[in-house]
Amino acid sequence: MNCLGVDPGVAIVGYGLVSETDDGLRSTIYGSIKTGSKLTIGERLDRIYNTMLERINDLKPDFLAVERLFFGRNVTSAGNVYQARGVILLAAQHFGVSVVELWPTQIKLSICEKGHATKKEIQERVKNMLSLEKIPRPDDTADALACAITGITIIHEGVNYGMD
Amino acid sequence: MNCLGVDPGVAIVGYGLVSETDDGLRSTIYGSIKTGSKLTIGERLDRIYNTMLERINDLKPDFLAVERLFFGRNVTSAGNVYQARGVILLAAQHFGVSVVELWPTQIKLSICEKGHATKKEIQERVKNMLSLEKIPRPDDTADALACAITGITIIHEGVNYGMD
Repeated sequence: MNCLGVDPGVAIVGYGLVSETDDGLRSTIYGSIKTGSKLTIGERLDRIYNTMLERINDLKPDFLAVERLFFGRNVTSAGNVYQARGVILLAAQHFGVSVVELWPTQIKLSICEKGHATKKEIQERVKNMLSLEKIPRPDDTADALACAITGITIIHEGVNYGMD
Repeated sequence: MNCLGVDPGVAIVGYGLVSETDDGLRSTIYGSIKTGSKLTIGERLDRIYNTMLERINDLKPDFLAVERLFFGRNVTSAGNVYQARGVILLAAQHFGVSVVELWPTQIKLSICEKGHATKKEIQERVKNMLSLEKIPRPDDTADALACAITGITIIHEGVNYGMD
């Protein structure tokens, strides 16, 4: 089983494919999609949509795990990120690939066994779980891998950490 | 010049084409796209995206006027609406059609000359401006027509009500 984790954003979308192997969970393909701020919002969404289509087509994941957004009060910046998330879900739908949507707290609980783990703790744990030499950069990529690991854990073990 | 106004939503998307004619602004084509709550979010976004592609292809608007979202504190419901708005902007981008994005206050100022006009006042004014027999239903459709009228006013007269 393999899962393409996605950390949605409008300037940067992190992604990473996590696969189950005989040696445990591994990832060899991860990165980020960047869109320049000089592009219109339509151009940025188009770039994200098209790149997601390419990645899904190339990587053939069994499913996507896409982080849900939690914003305190900053609805303005949330708007564009949600719009980007919309075209990511659309790309998955256009390939008929299932999507698991995960709250940040679910990911923290799954990866670090505590709901208030720091970003640094998550990243270290992701590096160790996937036997990577370094923490993947940018942060969005590491977040996407954490999302993919959690997606596999939930689907494979039926563990849902009481969040849904 | 004609403009396709869009009022974004995930359960209902309102749309309406407004055209400049010798008799003033008129609209003969307006309606709404509805998505059932039993569909997955991916299926709902797909339905909205595909229907928007169809409408843009059929109606060949010079540009789209898409309402911006203003949510007080209800970020949770805003999320899905923004996701829907993302796929609407993507559909416009896929046809190479320009998009004017309008704040609710801009629309109220343009239609009723006051920034705190009620929904009812806007709808009555839209009906009169377009010489319609009745206020279009659902509300989302009337809102979309108000958006299209404002889009044309702004583009045509260069009036921007100091909002952007």
